[in-house]
Amino acid sequence: MDLARPRVETLLEGYRLGTDQGAVAFCAVNLVEGPDEQGTIRRIIVDTGHTGRRTDLDRALARRGLGRGDIDMVVCTHAHWDHVENIDIFDQARIVLHRNERRYLRSPHRNDHACPEWIGSVFERYDDRIREVEEGVQLLPGVEIVDAPGHSAGTIAVAVAGDDGAAVLTGDSIQNSTVARERRNALVFWSDELATQTIDKLVTIGDVIYPGHDLPFRIDANGKVEYVHDYRLTVTGVPAGEPGLKLDTSETFRQTIMPGIEEQRLPD
Amino acid sequence: MDLARPRVETLLEGYRLGTDQGAVAFCAVNLVEGPDEQGTIRRIIVDTGHTGRRTDLDRALARRGLGRGDIDMVVCTHAHWDHVENIDIFDQARIVLHRNERRYLRSPHRNDHACPEWIGSVFERYDDRIREVEEGVQLLPGVEIVDAPGHSAGTIAVAVAGDDGAAVLTGDSIQNSTVARERRNALVFWSDELATQTIDKLVTIGDVIYPGHDLPFRIDANGKVEYVHDYRLTVTGVPAGEPGLKLDTSETFRQTIMPGIEEQRLPD
Repeated sequence: MDLARPRVETLLEGYRLGTDQGAVAFCAVNLVEGPDEQGTIRRIIVDTGHTGRRTDLDRALARRGLGRGDIDMVVCTHAHWDHVENIDIFDQARIVLHRNERRYLRSPHRNDHACPEWIGSVFERYDDRIREVEEGVQLLPGVEIVDAPGHSAGTIAVAVAGDDGAAVLTGDSIQNSTVARERRNALVFWSDELATQTIDKLVTIGDVIYPGHDLPFRIDANGKVEYVHDYRLTVTGVPAGEPGLKLDTSETFRQTIMPGIEEQRLPD
Repeated sequence: MDLARPRVETLLEGYRLGTDQGAVAFCAVNLVEGPDEQGTIRRIIVDTGHTGRRTDLDRALARRGLGRGDIDMVVCTHAHWDHVENIDIFDQARIVLHRNERRYLRSPHRNDHACPEWIGSVFERYDDRIREVEEGVQLLPGVEIVDAPGHSAGTIAVAVAGDDGAAVLTGDSIQNSTVARERRNALVFWSDELATQTIDKLVTIGDVIYPGHDLPFRIDANGKVEYVHDYRLTVTGVPAGEPGLKLDTSETFRQTIMPGIEEQRLPD
């Protein structure tokens, strides 16, 4: 591989897929590859997905001739279960997260259903591999941390200056293209006001948005969303001809704010 | 409530639902209610589901006028992520699992994608609430542990002697009705031979089988499966008219054995 600039490749697509019986919660898992200052190619995974995608993640790496040990860094855009549960498999990688997110893990709000209290124990296991970051930290030349709070206390995005312009990997600061268009975060655990400021900021920075739970997209001059990848998903295990099975393809935007959000504080 | 015998109520149904991009992994979450020796009604949850079902679980309890604090025991049929991630919310409950499952958590096999190494740390947090059990342990009058190894080292089932005969809550020792019919476990991490012996045993004990990832069912004298509950599932977030979206309703049975299963040993 001969790379002058970093590039982004999606290992596992993010999906909006859900159900009325629980969250499917497939977040995008992206690989950023680029040369370090010495010209050595480094590999960063941004968000790992949850345990249910572990074998798919291994397969996605294997298709590229890569294994778990080839990953130098894992960025957690935030510490929600569906984005971090596979951090353990990359045992050669630094684990990158925002210092506010790490502080938050000490005592997540009881209503924060995306951040069970035990997630702190998961990160503690890999304490010696954690690197706390904040706005402006450069992971590689052209690969930079962008503060993106609101969805959670310490959500971060990763900006990648590639050959095709700026890509921004947003995690759940922008869950999907509707969120980018509405300028409202779909699920707010920390601050709606910050979440909206974050969306404005990221949409300005990014030529291509790699959202948390949707395919990457551009927004054209008329505000129209154009997806960069083709949609591909096979849903299995659904009974044929079952009247109780319904597909809801409506796209109504609905925002959920965590009850008790006004009590949110970072521990000292 | 006036109960002479224990009864089973499903809080969240188990589903076979899956995708080619990752496991949805919705296991059944069942509530067993019955009087203890003193006649006080006790409540046991058998398997908690994963984090993506946390709000649905709270809602299912609330619909019955129950809260997290009303649960006296949580049985983990086994320690896979999709069955145990909500143990933290029941902070008044004893956590029940087989001693072999607990031992296994000290060093899960690297290929055991359902049991990340950090699950041990999750259980450690609640160490003082754990009760190790094995075959024959009575949780309440008429509610008994049945050893059901094979799928994992220490899978257990719960047999409930209710008004309508014997219910057996199997966890993933029987994932679905096809597994019961084929007498082969769908996904084996410990021992295929034990897994098959377990299926034979549980199908003999149970009038109604409450499987890990399917609706409860009976098997009639001709071997025909009859579901006890109606199927109900709405899938959301799927794009309308998207050619890349496929529904696979085939029911071909396929067994997966973990690569490296022959290396499986319990640590001392």
